[in-house]
Amino acid sequence: MKAYIGLDIGGTKILGALFDEYGKIIKRVKKKTKAAKGTETVLLQIFKVIDGLLEDEEIHLLGIGAGCPGFVKDYSTVVFSPNIPFVDYDLAAIIKAKYNVPFVLGNDVNVAMFGEWNSSGFSDVNDVISIFVGTGVGGGIIIDGKIYVGQGGAGEIGHMIVNPNGIICGCGSHGCLEAYASKTGIQKSIVAGIRKGRKTVLKEYLEADGDVIKSSSLRRAYEANDEFAVEVIDGVAFYLGIGISNLVNIFHPEMVILGGGVMESLGEELLPIVIKESKKYVMPGMMNNVKFQLSKLSDDAGIVGGYYLAKAIECKS
Amino acid sequence: MKAYIGLDIGGTKILGALFDEYGKIIKRVKKKTKAAKGTETVLLQIFKVIDGLLEDEEIHLLGIGAGCPGFVKDYSTVVFSPNIPFVDYDLAAIIKAKYNVPFVLGNDVNVAMFGEWNSSGFSDVNDVISIFVGTGVGGGIIIDGKIYVGQGGAGEIGHMIVNPNGIICGCGSHGCLEAYASKTGIQKSIVAGIRKGRKTVLKEYLEADGDVIKSSSLRRAYEANDEFAVEVIDGVAFYLGIGISNLVNIFHPEMVILGGGVMESLGEELLPIVIKESKKYVMPGMMNNVKFQLSKLSDDAGIVGGYYLAKAIECKS
Repeated sequence: MKAYIGLDIGGTKILGALFDEYGKIIKRVKKKTKAAKGTETVLLQIFKVIDGLLEDEEIHLLGIGAGCPGFVKDYSTVVFSPNIPFVDYDLAAIIKAKYNVPFVLGNDVNVAMFGEWNSSGFSDVNDVISIFVGTGVGGGIIIDGKIYVGQGGAGEIGHMIVNPNGIICGCGSHGCLEAYASKTGIQKSIVAGIRKGRKTVLKEYLEADGDVIKSSSLRRAYEANDEFAVEVIDGVAFYLGIGISNLVNIFHPEMVILGGGVMESLGEELLPIVIKESKKYVMPGMMNNVKFQLSKLSDDAGIVGGYYLAKAIECKS
Repeated sequence: MKAYIGLDIGGTKILGALFDEYGKIIKRVKKKTKAAKGTETVLLQIFKVIDGLLEDEEIHLLGIGAGCPGFVKDYSTVVFSPNIPFVDYDLAAIIKAKYNVPFVLGNDVNVAMFGEWNSSGFSDVNDVISIFVGTGVGGGIIIDGKIYVGQGGAGEIGHMIVNPNGIICGCGSHGCLEAYASKTGIQKSIVAGIRKGRKTVLKEYLEADGDVIKSSSLRRAYEANDEFAVEVIDGVAFYLGIGISNLVNIFHPEMVILGGGVMESLGEELLPIVIKESKKYVMPGMMNNVKFQLSKLSDDAGIVGGYYLAKAIECKS
């Protein structure tokens, strides 16, 4: 049978899936990345995932699409990655040589977004911005149906400065979107509030969660109308609203996809407030035809994106 | 001879130029727009400009490219314009029917930027952001060598919020880039400072300029090291730096073009500080290969952009 492979090469694990030509997942393989053991080991782990997926001899593999953290050049070379030991590493050349199939590589957030976009059901929508709100805040840009990377690093939406006099971000700047809207930012707000003596159920939830608040706990406090929890969520929505309005003013896209851990846990609560906030700051008329979409694929976004990338490349070649 | 026409349809005047096929301006015609007299009159004024340029019978016209303020759809229709009475007006259909040549229409800022980009001498640079700092702050985006408009309104860079607790902008939001960096914003800062009793030569310059500060006066005060003037210019550079760093983090472009009245008068002073500021906030490595360029074409940017647009369309068809 004709098939594609989608790979999600993360810092701790490599997820792989075999897809039939219609995008149905036939088989999954997961291996540890073993990043600390160096380049060769990681490469062997990638081979193991692919080989595991290909064990069935009847497979006619048409292409492999993959995502990994960091800067990726020309859909083939990892320039550098924060948590995988590849530096100026032409992974595509190696995979192509070994398996003799098209291989296309992108940044993990971009590939995940490509998966979400292709799975959104809006096939006529070609200019899309996505925002992933998790430990950090990342973004992906689709222009004219293609992933846009500029010189390689485009989509650093989390480091858009939305308040130059604001709190410090991990990157060293003040008032980045990530400093306010990421899980890390939320955690810091909660800890700071409790230290300042705010009365909130979050105090006991935080202790119960082992000092790192779970999104489910935050949601529980929000649903119980805990004043401080509502304030925290509203703060996140306010800054996400500013970030999104800036992006809509810049891109006038057809769709905005919101994903990542925070949106997955709190999306139902956050999305309506985020949309309301962002509409406040957008130029007249520009929000009229912008669709908002919560991500749907969760941990499968990377492998599904890999499948669609492989398919897109295969169509071209 | 083979020729193209570039048109810059403004709220008060229409500039037109006839270009030979190599981009040299052969002839210029300028007419009042007469926007207050309505759609038909404006159309007749456009015809007069084109007819004036075509008086020489030996011209073999290959195409017309034009820019006008407002939202332009499908390179043909003015959806609406702030200062020209065209609403959902398919100007391209009318021009094509009358002159039987390809006609392509864009937003004025985008078309001007297209001219600047094509005249920059960097023909291998295909992802470009431009920022026009004049009465307002506008922007243009070139992706993969093409003007990017999204759903029509992309490039509203001036209404990127860079300080949500900041001063109010003409659009109603707080802390838009335009509120700080535009000529209007600069004027307001100066008036506010003088009212607060700041000692500055700008006070007498402002009176001499008829209560609206000239860029040349601001430059003179800056060069004389007037403390308040330096503070005003540094403030503009600070916010432009934040705006540009946000855009570089988002687009990772190859080039940033800075144009508009403020940059034309103060560019030499502003550019080095703006670059220094913007580098502070960009993610590591992302500024390494970004070219900064001051606009060169001044009032000709629109007609030159029109020429290049016409040529680009003619190549495709």
